[in-house]
Amino acid sequence: MVEPYYTAFLEYLEVEQPKGQPESLYAPSNYILGLGGKRIRPLLTLLAADVCNGDFRAALPAAMAVEVFHNFSLVHDDIMDAAPLRRGQQTVHNKWDINAGILSGDVMLVAAYQYFESYPPKLFKELVTTFSLTAQQVCEGQQMDVDFPQQNEVTNAQYLQMITYKTAVLLGCALKMGALIGGASTDLAEQWYAFGKNIGIAFQLQDDYLDAFGDPKTFGKQVGGDIIENKKTFLYLCALKNGNSLQTAALIDWFSKNLDDNTEKIQQVKEIFKSTGAEAATRAEIQRYTHKAFDLLTALPYPKDRLQPLKNLAEALIQRTT
Amino acid sequence: MVEPYYTAFLEYLEVEQPKGQPESLYAPSNYILGLGGKRIRPLLTLLAADVCNGDFRAALPAAMAVEVFHNFSLVHDDIMDAAPLRRGQQTVHNKWDINAGILSGDVMLVAAYQYFESYPPKLFKELVTTFSLTAQQVCEGQQMDVDFPQQNEVTNAQYLQMITYKTAVLLGCALKMGALIGGASTDLAEQWYAFGKNIGIAFQLQDDYLDAFGDPKTFGKQVGGDIIENKKTFLYLCALKNGNSLQTAALIDWFSKNLDDNTEKIQQVKEIFKSTGAEAATRAEIQRYTHKAFDLLTALPYPKDRLQPLKNLAEALIQRTT
Repeated sequence: MVEPYYTAFLEYLEVEQPKGQPESLYAPSNYILGLGGKRIRPLLTLLAADVCNGDFRAALPAAMAVEVFHNFSLVHDDIMDAAPLRRGQQTVHNKWDINAGILSGDVMLVAAYQYFESYPPKLFKELVTTFSLTAQQVCEGQQMDVDFPQQNEVTNAQYLQMITYKTAVLLGCALKMGALIGGASTDLAEQWYAFGKNIGIAFQLQDDYLDAFGDPKTFGKQVGGDIIENKKTFLYLCALKNGNSLQTAALIDWFSKNLDDNTEKIQQVKEIFKSTGAEAATRAEIQRYTHKAFDLLTALPYPKDRLQPLKNLAEALIQRTT
Repeated sequence: MVEPYYTAFLEYLEVEQPKGQPESLYAPSNYILGLGGKRIRPLLTLLAADVCNGDFRAALPAAMAVEVFHNFSLVHDDIMDAAPLRRGQQTVHNKWDINAGILSGDVMLVAAYQYFESYPPKLFKELVTTFSLTAQQVCEGQQMDVDFPQQNEVTNAQYLQMITYKTAVLLGCALKMGALIGGASTDLAEQWYAFGKNIGIAFQLQDDYLDAFGDPKTFGKQVGGDIIENKKTFLYLCALKNGNSLQTAALIDWFSKNLDDNTEKIQQVKEIFKSTGAEAATRAEIQRYTHKAFDLLTALPYPKDRLQPLKNLAEALIQRTT
């Protein structure tokens, strides 16, 4: 049902992606934008504009800004995480080098801003202001994520704040910008934002959950990756908070290890996640944010059938097992 | 004569510099912005606005945008150049780490855009559009600079393009934005830009020149630094272009060496720069861009006395020996 939007976006991307001289600056941008992905964020922008006034094409430049910004953040985050692979292919800093990753990321961030120049001044300012605040929060969320391993205690609230900034606000921003382009008032655009933010939190919690409890047959990544890396995910923080002293001692002990064979560790930690109620608590939290998101979506003042493609996309986002 | 502007800028910087949570994200920004420097770029913005309509305070947010952007580029460039020191102090990535340098730089770039939000929509769009194009060109200039050592041949034209983008356009942008805030028309603002760009090229050529021929007593950096690093500066490219086969062979030979004691190398290379006429050619080129800049400044339609502080600043920029 999102096919026409997806196709239109890819056609626009093909023609309008960042380009210029020297070619060496733009090759990494071209590469990362060509690696594919589900293009969720730009689709959200197009769908929101379409729901508002039926003209999704007017939102194509803003959709590009969101996608280019998202890819900028992937390039810089992959350097910080020393990640060798992205979508099964070499990361930019791995294929080129760290300098290429930094500088091509920088020019992508600038290019993201430049896409808004096709909008008239008042709308331009609303879009750029919304976008800048989100970009700032994405940096703050990434810094929190960078800081967590060195931090003695991370609270559930801090964790939710981190994923809100690092992941969820960009979904909210994508929808809000689409709504603004579609002529929505500031108040209404904020309702779109709230829907996107909540679906984003649910999505990220689901991602954490599936990392431990996903079906290895359908989950795209290695199940247990976060456990192997001793990542302080929501599951881990809930287990620490709710577990008895034996359970938390065992969990802390497992999370102090870096092993060659992680089979036993993954199994034991998952047991602790279950026996402490962390698994159930995380599922409940995913449900809570999902319901909140869909309540917000249903409350938007548009006919039900016009919201349907967006509802489908949000459902696919949450129910995904890959 | 620029004291009041300088003081006003530092007061504004103190209060309005980027801040937020987590503190670890903003500490590097705070640090680099506090390292001092002559604040040439923001002063240009304030002086241009002042010349146009006497209200330099209205240009303070744009002046901050320029200074924060300049410092963002220093932080990321220092990572790329593996530079240990900046203004005699540790560089950000050296004091913290590369990840802190990347991420704090990113949030500074976003913050630079946010300073424009205090301007009304039409002016906001003009400023942001000008700023984005400049930011894009600064990235392109930096990429050219990164690519040059691996490039077989670098022409004088390519070198001038590189320093124009890497250094000069930001001076042009700083003045143009000040002029726009001061109510100048687009055409007039472009004349301000042209003055800034030309003074920027003269300034950067002068910097190259002084690196080899500056007075060790008054030149701030180590004289001969570019020669030690085998940098393809304007002097080097002129010598290669104008020298006979013996001279160019000797120069290429010296530039293939990385020595412990560079005394002989610096002296010999400077001799080649002189005997090939590269030294004179570079001085002539500095003169040419300086004259062009001052002709453009003089042609601006304002009373002579109002342009005087700007003229003084531009002269100090060019005649500096430090």
